[in-house]
Amino acid sequence: MKRSTTQILARLRELMLRAQPGDSGCIAAYIVPSDDAHQSEYQCQHDERRSFVSGFDGSAGTAVVTTDSALLWTDGRYYQQAEKQLDSNWVLMKDGLTTTPSIGAWLAKNLPRGSAVGVDPRLLSFRVWKPIETELNAAECQLVPIEKNLIDEVWGADQPAQTSNPIITLKLEHSGVTIAKKWEVVRKQLKDKNVDALVVSALDEIAWFLNLRGSDIDFNPVFFAYLIVTSDELLLCVDSSKLPTDFAQHQTENNVKITILPYASIGLEISKIVSTKESKIWIAPTSSYYLTALIPKSRRFQEVTPVCVLKAIKNDVEIEGFVNSHIRDGVALCQYFAWLEDQVKRGVQVDEMSGSDKLESFRASKDKYMGLSFTTISASGPNGSVIHYHPKEETNRKINDTEIYLCDSGAQYLDGTTDVTRTLHFGEPTDFQREAYTRVLKGQLSFGSTVFPAKVKGQVLDTLARKALWDVGLDYGHGTGHGVGHFLNVHEGPMGVGIRLMPDDPGLQANMFISNEPGFYQDGEFGIRVEDIVQIVPAVQVAHNFANRGALTFKTITMCPKQTKMIKKELLSEVEVKLLNSYHQQVWETLSPILSREGDEFTLAWLKKEVLPI
Amino acid sequence: MKRSTTQILARLRELMLRAQPGDSGCIAAYIVPSDDAHQSEYQCQHDERRSFVSGFDGSAGTAVVTTDSALLWTDGRYYQQAEKQLDSNWVLMKDGLTTTPSIGAWLAKNLPRGSAVGVDPRLLSFRVWKPIETELNAAECQLVPIEKNLIDEVWGADQPAQTSNPIITLKLEHSGVTIAKKWEVVRKQLKDKNVDALVVSALDEIAWFLNLRGSDIDFNPVFFAYLIVTSDELLLCVDSSKLPTDFAQHQTENNVKITILPYASIGLEISKIVSTKESKIWIAPTSSYYLTALIPKSRRFQEVTPVCVLKAIKNDVEIEGFVNSHIRDGVALCQYFAWLEDQVKRGVQVDEMSGSDKLESFRASKDKYMGLSFTTISASGPNGSVIHYHPKEETNRKINDTEIYLCDSGAQYLDGTTDVTRTLHFGEPTDFQREAYTRVLKGQLSFGSTVFPAKVKGQVLDTLARKALWDVGLDYGHGTGHGVGHFLNVHEGPMGVGIRLMPDDPGLQANMFISNEPGFYQDGEFGIRVEDIVQIVPAVQVAHNFANRGALTFKTITMCPKQTKMIKKELLSEVEVKLLNSYHQQVWETLSPILSREGDEFTLAWLKKEVLPI
Repeated sequence: MKRSTTQILARLRELMLRAQPGDSGCIAAYIVPSDDAHQSEYQCQHDERRSFVSGFDGSAGTAVVTTDSALLWTDGRYYQQAEKQLDSNWVLMKDGLTTTPSIGAWLAKNLPRGSAVGVDPRLLSFRVWKPIETELNAAECQLVPIEKNLIDEVWGADQPAQTSNPIITLKLEHSGVTIAKKWEVVRKQLKDKNVDALVVSALDEIAWFLNLRGSDIDFNPVFFAYLIVTSDELLLCVDSSKLPTDFAQHQTENNVKITILPYASIGLEISKIVSTKESKIWIAPTSSYYLTALIPKSRRFQEVTPVCVLKAIKNDVEIEGFVNSHIRDGVALCQYFAWLEDQVKRGVQVDEMSGSDKLESFRASKDKYMGLSFTTISASGPNGSVIHYHPKEETNRKINDTEIYLCDSGAQYLDGTTDVTRTLHFGEPTDFQREAYTRVLKGQLSFGSTVFPAKVKGQVLDTLARKALWDVGLDYGHGTGHGVGHFLNVHEGPMGVGIRLMPDDPGLQANMFISNEPGFYQDGEFGIRVEDIVQIVPAVQVAHNFANRGALTFKTITMCPKQTKMIKKELLSEVEVKLLNSYHQQVWETLSPILSREGDEFTLAWLKKEVLPI
Repeated sequence: MKRSTTQILARLRELMLRAQPGDSGCIAAYIVPSDDAHQSEYQCQHDERRSFVSGFDGSAGTAVVTTDSALLWTDGRYYQQAEKQLDSNWVLMKDGLTTTPSIGAWLAKNLPRGSAVGVDPRLLSFRVWKPIETELNAAECQLVPIEKNLIDEVWGADQPAQTSNPIITLKLEHSGVTIAKKWEVVRKQLKDKNVDALVVSALDEIAWFLNLRGSDIDFNPVFFAYLIVTSDELLLCVDSSKLPTDFAQHQTENNVKITILPYASIGLEISKIVSTKESKIWIAPTSSYYLTALIPKSRRFQEVTPVCVLKAIKNDVEIEGFVNSHIRDGVALCQYFAWLEDQVKRGVQVDEMSGSDKLESFRASKDKYMGLSFTTISASGPNGSVIHYHPKEETNRKINDTEIYLCDSGAQYLDGTTDVTRTLHFGEPTDFQREAYTRVLKGQLSFGSTVFPAKVKGQVLDTLARKALWDVGLDYGHGTGHGVGHFLNVHEGPMGVGIRLMPDDPGLQANMFISNEPGFYQDGEFGIRVEDIVQIVPAVQVAHNFANRGALTFKTITMCPKQTKMIKKELLSEVEVKLLNSYHQQVWETLSPILSREGDEFTLAWLKKEVLPI
């Protein structure tokens, strides 16, 4: 399970001795972020440098290597996984604990004055770079950009190449709005902010804006590219060989002309704009330090891009697709859970991996299916308490009737992206398990039914999902809600719901889609999570309109029953019982005609039992 | 109601022409903050410069005067008041609206490049200075400290002198902990943070740390002084003539020796420490830019002071005093409301001002009474919708049986500080008034009874107080809770509960005291607010202990009934009804023996009626 990193670290430390040009070219520490050059949440194998150097392959974490230490910072979702994967060269730094110093603070304290800390400036966002730099400077140390990536040098010929898969066009029947129309809105914002150009480096923003999709990163239908938007030009830096054959027609249908430039020319193009234009240049604080530093400080306009905000607010076609894809996805889920319950009851061996494969096959049979939206979390018993668990050969566990089964999964469809979690017990759950499940469900119902003023930050609703757990001293160590892309990344910003404010949250607005996913995890025993995707909609029944803000609420679009066996009804209020029963009624009315039509009496019978009112 | 500021502005603009030394000594704008040199929330008359220059005398606001404009920024609590008080020279800038630019942004946009903006560096905290400076610099303008205060020059001989009233000692029976013990805790923190000295400029922190009280600012038992704490010295910069006669004995009883220095020598003393010591110097980001700038940037340790955090967590003696003073205060409130109801019913004329005087006289009759903790908000009908209204001759309104009466008041006692709001109707409230009141009460009950993990930021609980209002599209434009000093300022940090995070919030901890005060305001019609002071206490009945954090809850220490006539019982849940009835039961059990003992049968009869279960 642990891979030895001794050789890798030795080689890296050699390179650190002469990482900078000049005589005193050594750096005292090298930071290995998990980012790629686009600050993507998931990376293609080429970019899995932090995983290569440390052995820890969770989705979040940063490695720091000094001449005599190697440290890995990661958050609460990954403590267990990191402890399992890091070899003895590494120290786990538990991010999020008050006793854990930040990377900058640790380096400032442990390096001699005058030390240089190196990092690839493409792999750190400006927002992450700045505080580290400030902390280092306060200790008379420096954060220096190292142009050549040292991990790539160590990795050498074994490093997989950057993926460059074919791009596909998304027709208007699925995108809903032409590029020209999106450009019009962005152009207005550039004018309002007195900005000459917008640099977009986030892959999902580029894909969405251009009504294109790719497959360069597993589960994320994006492609490697950079985009520059001015009032009269769209410059796309991309490997032109991957452009679709119908690209000319795509531009015609979308009423635009896109200039294609080499992927690697983005730096040059930014520098050109800096020298030919006069006003500011818009670049998100989440873009890399490398790109940002190409723009003189006084010329930077550093805010979340208008594309990011526009993308989060779905148009009518995207909304329809979201709803429809969630119905198809719900059918697949019901088919899987019905099948699984039957297998377990009949004593047929199903494990986390074969179960997850079966679920994938049900999804793959559905219309417009394009693949999974993330690795399925199929977790039995104690594995469920590892929040971002994915089954592997060495952890694979039988799904049985004595342990809780947690299944968090999702798919990409041409018309939408899904992400859903259900927690089931095929035998007799303990009283505590039922209490925990019920409190998680109470939080989900409270959050999912709340009415709130338009544009409040997602953070202000977080407590509603936790309150029933807090009442008895329980909680969960992750956020409550994230945005979901439309046939795009399963996690997208800029809004989000958690105990901390998302820095770019523009406030919750109608037709944003977010997840509603409280949970509870008993380390080494079980995990509970119930997750739906909800659409933000106007709260039409509301009588008043304070400060003319308008009131919003949520509409659940995930269609899959929540196991009532796990519920302690006496812990639910009358309102909560009504909410749950009415949700189940809606699931029945939505899915049963499809199952009937398909002649799937087996799943229909299961569903009928699962949606019985409590 | 409006005072002409034409002459004052003309004279100020003359001074702005030669505000800086040198030939081009003119400044394009002058900022007049409402702060004094200690960043106090309330000021003595000497420091009411913003009020002098603008005519607006609300507690929060900043004036900006350019060569041809005069602007006043203030927040939602004061829009109405500012509109009433500002003459035609002034433009009201409604802080908090998304359409209102910040001061820095407005100046950056409206001043020519290269302009200098002046401000007295003593009157702006470092935290407020920095973003204004950044915004100005981005527009190639500068924020310059002007040593001589221009408003003082305009004001001239008419400006009241800085107050310098006698200081009194707070005996151990009321303070609970010696200065030596407080110093010990602070000393340890200085050592932990590797800091040589702590500069304290906040007046309530100095008073609390030294177990001294003053009366230099109305309602705030503080005195003008600066304090420097090192591991072996306590330097107090203060007008020595105001020291108490028992000051020597006070030091003995508190096991310390305090070095007294002139008030004006603080700058000199900081500079001395800068040059004689080597490590960092701790100064809060809320201290003035002037004091902060005396410390080289690399030597600054800018965090909330340890004194501020320690002061917020009350010791056993302070807690006992808090509870007891709230009981005495509750008796005074009941006596007032009983009297008032009777007067109104009998048709005897009582107005907002005479009512407030009567309430003061009831309080003044109580043991350990030291004065009011803020100007009483005694507001009838539409005046109640002005959130920080204080009755004046020209606004004074009769208290009657057709309008809602809102009374927000508090007192200083030797053993605690109170702050309480009750809203009453002596006739027949409308259905909407009752609904609004009930929803405010629901928020108060939800917030006041919630269980939460220790050390969560106050902000995360804010939504609980608003949810019942949000359900029908209502809300209120102020925070939900603020800290309260112990025989000190009625508003104190560093924690607080509102829709935005308090920047220095160390997380809610046992034995902090905060207010619980949701409200609702119908502009020009009525205001509703219900406010209690709550103590944070361990939630002992909680079964689990997630991540070993410990669970906390609130205990209400304000003792005064909430008018049940205003309640629509059908909107309350069973739990809420129980909470209210049990609170009233507790009020009865606490106050009735005192009223009986005092032979106040009249108030007793009123109380008996008011606490009847619903």
